Amino acid sequence: MHMIQSVGIIGCGALGRNLFHNLKPLEGLTVECFCRSIEKDDSLYQSSVRKIEELFHCDLILIAVSDQDIIEVGQILNAYSGIVAHCSGATPLHNFNGKGGVFYPLQSFSRSVIRSFKEIPLFIEGDNEETTIQLYSFAQRLSNQVEQLSSEKRQKLHLAAVVSQNFSNHLIALTQAYLEKEGISFQALIPLLEEGLGNALYQNAREIQSGPARRKDTKTLDAHLSLLKEEKRLLPLYEQLSESIKTYYEEDF
Amino acid sequence: MHMIQSVGIIGCGALGRNLFHNLKPLEGLTVECFCRSIEKDDSLYQSSVRKIEELFHCDLILIAVSDQDIIEVGQILNAYSGIVAHCSGATPLHNFNGKGGVFYPLQSFSRSVIRSFKEIPLFIEGDNEETTIQLYSFAQRLSNQVEQLSSEKRQKLHLAAVVSQNFSNHLIALTQAYLEKEGISFQALIPLLEEGLGNALYQNAREIQSGPARRKDTKTLDAHLSLLKEEKRLLPLYEQLSESIKTYYEEDF
Repeated sequence: MHMIQSVGIIGCGALGRNLFHNLKPLEGLTVECFCRSIEKDDSLYQSSVRKIEELFHCDLILIAVSDQDIIEVGQILNAYSGIVAHCSGATPLHNFNGKGGVFYPLQSFSRSVIRSFKEIPLFIEGDNEETTIQLYSFAQRLSNQVEQLSSEKRQKLHLAAVVSQNFSNHLIALTQAYLEKEGISFQALIPLLEEGLGNALYQNAREIQSGPARRKDTKTLDAHLSLLKEEKRLLPLYEQLSESIKTYYEEDF
Repeated sequence: MHMIQSVGIIGCGALGRNLFHNLKPLEGLTVECFCRSIEKDDSLYQSSVRKIEELFHCDLILIAVSDQDIIEVGQILNAYSGIVAHCSGATPLHNFNGKGGVFYPLQSFSRSVIRSFKEIPLFIEGDNEETTIQLYSFAQRLSNQVEQLSSEKRQKLHLAAVVSQNFSNHLIALTQAYLEKEGISFQALIPLLEEGLGNALYQNAREIQSGPARRKDTKTLDAHLSLLKEEKRLLPLYEQLSESIKTYYEEDF
């Protein structure tokens, strides 16, 4: 089996850039990228090609574009015969002309910060065994945490990330806005949140649940609901999440 | 003004124990506690009294019992003439016979782990200026972060803690349960959550919000709702939180 020696990256957003800068130092690997538009002073400029077709000599093309553009980009690769892998958690495996795969790093990226992939979990899938093996061994050159995962399970993992990360972030955003409006510093909450959220990740979050809903402390719940009566966004979330916590602990386990 | 030289703690739960072990080493301070029941081999036994009345010689009594028992305990202190402070975030300041106060550490405690109060924010309130000053300077012996805060603001701060900490913990608990049921390891999410939740605390969480609701990625949202159609607990939370995120970014700021 031929080892992957050349990689093309389509997309120079946050993910594309992080991929590029992590792949570039790998020995025996050439890396090129295609961006819709790129400035001459961009650090990726020297390694960028003008047309996607110029990547067709590569052993692997990674599609690092937004989810809704993946299929469209894939169609441009009809004449390409190497492996094509997209990097999306929510998008199923696509055939992409016979050698399709998935190369999903479970992390948020930004354009300005280049992160090492070493500790980032990478989830791999291929539409045939050879592609899977190729992607798997290639991924191991980047990360210490590589796992093969089906599209179905990857989609569930992505859903879990949304529930735990995106929704918690929203609750923190609403808390920051509420305290700012009330003239109270958010700063004082940081030690509690660092400790509490850190514990939740490494312990059983169900068991360490605290707060008035967990204790069924109706007096505090009522006082909070009364404080929130003008808060059209926080009020329904407070009601629903408190209700969910209360009933969760009534269930038999 | 007389400096506080003796403290009595009522309650030997998680908070009472943490208070006791932080106060005990302070120079020039005697600390006693009252517990409803205490074993001879308990580390607090040597410093415990049999009746609450035996604490009446103290300059300060800290009530470290659960919120719903605070008033009842306070009534036993009718003949006591020192300062009485409760330690609850949700309970308003009470008069407690003339020298009432609040001594609220913003942190979760457990019986088994004794934490240093040095980095724990302590919020102080007194029903007269002298009591406030006494509590404030006493609190400064324990913590580097002491602040005077009104009952009204303390209650809002406590509400903010519930929204950001208790609710996020619940979302993480539901995520852990969901992944376990689906046979997927929660472990892989830890780097994402550590990074994401850490950023939320030190940055503007509204600005760093990501995820399908933020992007109005209807395709992914629909796919997730379809995955959750049998999940009677996660489904309504997913719907409401996604809706809240979507509309939050439509508002003018």
